[in-house]
Amino acid sequence: MPRLCVPLWSFQAALCPTSTCPPPCRHCLVPQPISSLSPCRTGLVLVRNPHLDLMEEDILYHLDLGTKTHNLPAMFGDIKFVCVGGSPNRMRAFAQFMRRELGLAGAGEDVADICAGSDRYAMYRAGPVLSISHGMGIPSISIMLHELIKLLHHAKCRDVTIIRIGTSGGLGIEAGSVVITDMAVDSSFRPRFEQVVLDDVVVRSTELDKDLAEELLTCSRDIPDFPTLIGHTMCTYDFYEGQGRLDGALCSFSSEKKLDYLRRAYEAGVRNIEMESTAFAALCGLCGLKAAVVCVALLDRLQGDQIRASHEVLWEYQQRPQRLIAAFIRKRLGLVHKA
Amino acid sequence: MPRLCVPLWSFQAALCPTSTCPPPCRHCLVPQPISSLSPCRTGLVLVRNPHLDLMEEDILYHLDLGTKTHNLPAMFGDIKFVCVGGSPNRMRAFAQFMRRELGLAGAGEDVADICAGSDRYAMYRAGPVLSISHGMGIPSISIMLHELIKLLHHAKCRDVTIIRIGTSGGLGIEAGSVVITDMAVDSSFRPRFEQVVLDDVVVRSTELDKDLAEELLTCSRDIPDFPTLIGHTMCTYDFYEGQGRLDGALCSFSSEKKLDYLRRAYEAGVRNIEMESTAFAALCGLCGLKAAVVCVALLDRLQGDQIRASHEVLWEYQQRPQRLIAAFIRKRLGLVHKA
Repeated sequence: MPRLCVPLWSFQAALCPTSTCPPPCRHCLVPQPISSLSPCRTGLVLVRNPHLDLMEEDILYHLDLGTKTHNLPAMFGDIKFVCVGGSPNRMRAFAQFMRRELGLAGAGEDVADICAGSDRYAMYRAGPVLSISHGMGIPSISIMLHELIKLLHHAKCRDVTIIRIGTSGGLGIEAGSVVITDMAVDSSFRPRFEQVVLDDVVVRSTELDKDLAEELLTCSRDIPDFPTLIGHTMCTYDFYEGQGRLDGALCSFSSEKKLDYLRRAYEAGVRNIEMESTAFAALCGLCGLKAAVVCVALLDRLQGDQIRASHEVLWEYQQRPQRLIAAFIRKRLGLVHKA
Repeated sequence: MPRLCVPLWSFQAALCPTSTCPPPCRHCLVPQPISSLSPCRTGLVLVRNPHLDLMEEDILYHLDLGTKTHNLPAMFGDIKFVCVGGSPNRMRAFAQFMRRELGLAGAGEDVADICAGSDRYAMYRAGPVLSISHGMGIPSISIMLHELIKLLHHAKCRDVTIIRIGTSGGLGIEAGSVVITDMAVDSSFRPRFEQVVLDDVVVRSTELDKDLAEELLTCSRDIPDFPTLIGHTMCTYDFYEGQGRLDGALCSFSSEKKLDYLRRAYEAGVRNIEMESTAFAALCGLCGLKAAVVCVALLDRLQGDQIRASHEVLWEYQQRPQRLIAAFIRKRLGLVHKA
């Protein structure tokens, strides 16, 4: 049976940088239930792995970066925002867009892929913003997040906000709507993420930062040309059978059964469906990163399964979360938007 | 509780092309245990979804292909071998290599990405061989396989052999060894794949084609410069905690616990660990594709967790499954290798 992931915290005393972390940072003292954990007051990114301190070198294999081959504090120490999304092209476009939005020299030029030595993920910089692709699905984003979190830790980054900007299937909402996730839920509509650790299955909280979600919703009010809402996001391991689609290579259920399932998801508060949010919320939450998930709905799944909009319409949809996040970052950085 | 996936077969009468499929194709008549299912004798790729027949158009969204926008039988009808692997660059290199191996005009030239309109997957052709990337993890390969299987079905392909050529962590074997999978197992060393379908979890067989595995092993005897063996392959949902690594952002277990787990895996017959084989075996098996998994081990996990070999060594390792599959395809096509 799944159980709450308490053993992880037995390592806490070894992990929290007590010399720099003023009391009452309680991580150092008391094992707590996951839901009451808050980031260390130093603002540092916490790795929860005592073995890392014993390693002479850390090779971030899938990012093609490492602690001996790269000066990670110099390369990344000033990063304050990390934006992640499935598609490498979209994350390059977001970095280019952010360079324009932040008025950085070289805006309009191509941006260099920091992970060019690996084709697993793509990573770009725009000032204090890092833009990284994570592929599709929980395993793919999970590999990237482990290595990203270690990267931010090695680089001694502080007060980092991380946002997933993605695409999703909407539920009872208009195509093109942007959903800010208040809670990531699994395929049974429960706010939990199950992680296999050796012989055990540990259950982790998928709580996201409530204040950050509200701040993003406030920002969205300045962008009136598309609807933005807050809702639960359902995260599945599969795009076809796992999301109740009738158009996969396999389908063993009727249209009625599908709609019954999706309507129950809607009644449970789910407004969109994607494939990464529970793992993203769990991993970021455990490592002290303030995290949000902002996805555009490419269609309303109560109306159909196939994504039929034109490339142009889909491209404009995908820019919506980017525009919202750009407005949020500009606001955080105290930049007034050009008229 | 997970249960055997029997309801799927209630649609069989509607699915099997009885007009072309001579008796005794028992798919049409008798629901059978999954393990006794064999491909339809027509050699066609079976989609097990009665809804597909009712669709006027099928958009293979993540491949950027469709039944109305592309003449799939003309483009793909003669495909006999499909090779899939995680990395897009590696799958492009494999297509280029196959063009040279098959003596095709234009060998050495760049090959065109058939899915260039999408950056989710990359697809290349070399004569009767299709080479496709699938990203990392079960959800990512699963999306690709649903759309690939529909593609092969729409294109009316027959007698297709599909092989995953990947990278993996070895278990008690030398780095650079190539493992042909006889059985894909989950993190509890069981030959099964659990798929969420609406409110249920259905359990599917991960049986692979035994004759194909033996045929590949026979081919490997002509390539003496690296070791090839047959063994079980463990498939996990995560690269770090899920594979017992001590070098992730989170780790709650000791080196002893990790080694105890990996040794038990070895004793159960596991010789390598990767992240796609159970879903690959289950989906291909259900759709009548003869399937094999051939992965090179980048390291021995009993010796360590980090992948420390140089780019050059890793690149040569990754060519080993490609060389084996090229030899197999040449043999199947009756081509004698150049001296």
